[in-house]
Amino acid sequence: MSEPRFFAPDATATGSIVALPESEATHLTRVLRLKARDAVRVFNGRGEQWRAEVVEATGQRVTTRLAETVEAAPEIRTRITLAIAVLKGDKMDDVVRDAVMLGVTRIQPVIAERTEVTAVAIARGDRVARWQRIAIASAKQCGRAVVPEVCAPVMLPSAFATDAAQLMLVEPNAGGHPGAGAGTRVRGLRDVPVTSAVTLLVGPEGGWSAVEVQAAAASGVMLVTLGGQTLRADAAPMVAVSALRALWNDF
Amino acid sequence: MSEPRFFAPDATATGSIVALPESEATHLTRVLRLKARDAVRVFNGRGEQWRAEVVEATGQRVTTRLAETVEAAPEIRTRITLAIAVLKGDKMDDVVRDAVMLGVTRIQPVIAERTEVTAVAIARGDRVARWQRIAIASAKQCGRAVVPEVCAPVMLPSAFATDAAQLMLVEPNAGGHPGAGAGTRVRGLRDVPVTSAVTLLVGPEGGWSAVEVQAAAASGVMLVTLGGQTLRADAAPMVAVSALRALWNDF
Repeated sequence: MSEPRFFAPDATATGSIVALPESEATHLTRVLRLKARDAVRVFNGRGEQWRAEVVEATGQRVTTRLAETVEAAPEIRTRITLAIAVLKGDKMDDVVRDAVMLGVTRIQPVIAERTEVTAVAIARGDRVARWQRIAIASAKQCGRAVVPEVCAPVMLPSAFATDAAQLMLVEPNAGGHPGAGAGTRVRGLRDVPVTSAVTLLVGPEGGWSAVEVQAAAASGVMLVTLGGQTLRADAAPMVAVSALRALWNDF
Repeated sequence: MSEPRFFAPDATATGSIVALPESEATHLTRVLRLKARDAVRVFNGRGEQWRAEVVEATGQRVTTRLAETVEAAPEIRTRITLAIAVLKGDKMDDVVRDAVMLGVTRIQPVIAERTEVTAVAIARGDRVARWQRIAIASAKQCGRAVVPEVCAPVMLPSAFATDAAQLMLVEPNAGGHPGAGAGTRVRGLRDVPVTSAVTLLVGPEGGWSAVEVQAAAASGVMLVTLGGQTLRADAAPMVAVSALRALWNDF
């Protein structure tokens, strides 16, 4: 087994002394009970990782000296933003954890028409900070040195505003839905052109509304389907990302 | 929304009167509070589904009269057996639920060297019956009319004994492992030939042992890897099945 890994966003260069954030410091001293001179690895969440030595370790104050860089788990080639309608209960925790494990670059929570949580409740519950902590924990567990950013929630139309190729997961028959406009094409996954950056829009438990599908299609978003079976909302992102990575030779 | 669906393994032909199993009957009368003459759908777990009418509904005794057949969610073309090393705690529940949702045909629990549950504990806890109930519930939820069989656990070597193409998920470097025999090839997913029936072997939390990998390779099992990132044991089956279905144009 290699040394335990810690996240230190301030880490930049071999030879420097870097303090760990408080939660990471506590993990090092209280959970793993490491001490000065113990060997660890430190990654900065932007893809860089170093061998390091603990310099000082007293409760919540931990500093490390960065030695040579060391390769982390390889990143996938495609930059994937997961734009996911906020799900009920704790389901977003699992979605964030799994999305990070599968190599997603960025997570954009979305408030859709059928989302059952309000933006106010998300803010009051400090949910974004929680999801960001889960993203860090998942990166540590799966060996990535990149910590995907979890953005503040936006209303659906704002999630259309990026430049990248955009895909919206819909039911197979959504293209024929009156709301989607006549003849709007719903593609299978294999008909999605390979791209270097994509935003994947995944709906809430009740699915996207007809108006939302129509607005997406009108904004140039490709409608795609995973086929005839009904997938759980919290499983759909993992299935779609796995399938796209397989088709794009990115495993 | 279409009518509520019920599982009745005895259903075989239009016009006949079919009793529901006790758990399905209870669901119909106590949870959904349906009564005689209500419209339902009945599927037999082997791919057939009918419109039906409730004839008698009194507590745990429910009979239905089968009318015309009606198509269920389409089955995938590939017959997939998931041979999964039994995981800790309740994780198998999620694996079974997700595997059924993704179209798997059969689930074979496996006792591997690093499995932390014994066959005796599985038998004592009546876990197979529980997993079979979860498979039924998942088929109901995702629209399938096929209920995959959950088999009794076997020791790993017995899981090699089938005729179908067999894949074992391993770490990327497992082929170079001393235990795997020199030059044992570990394939990427894209190098797996398309097949109409496959057994997918997925290991426990601690992975397969070197001896197990060697035994699999010696038995003609293909070793395949999902790449450099570490996946949770309970996520690996879903990722692998999604990826293979995508590559085999089976979504």
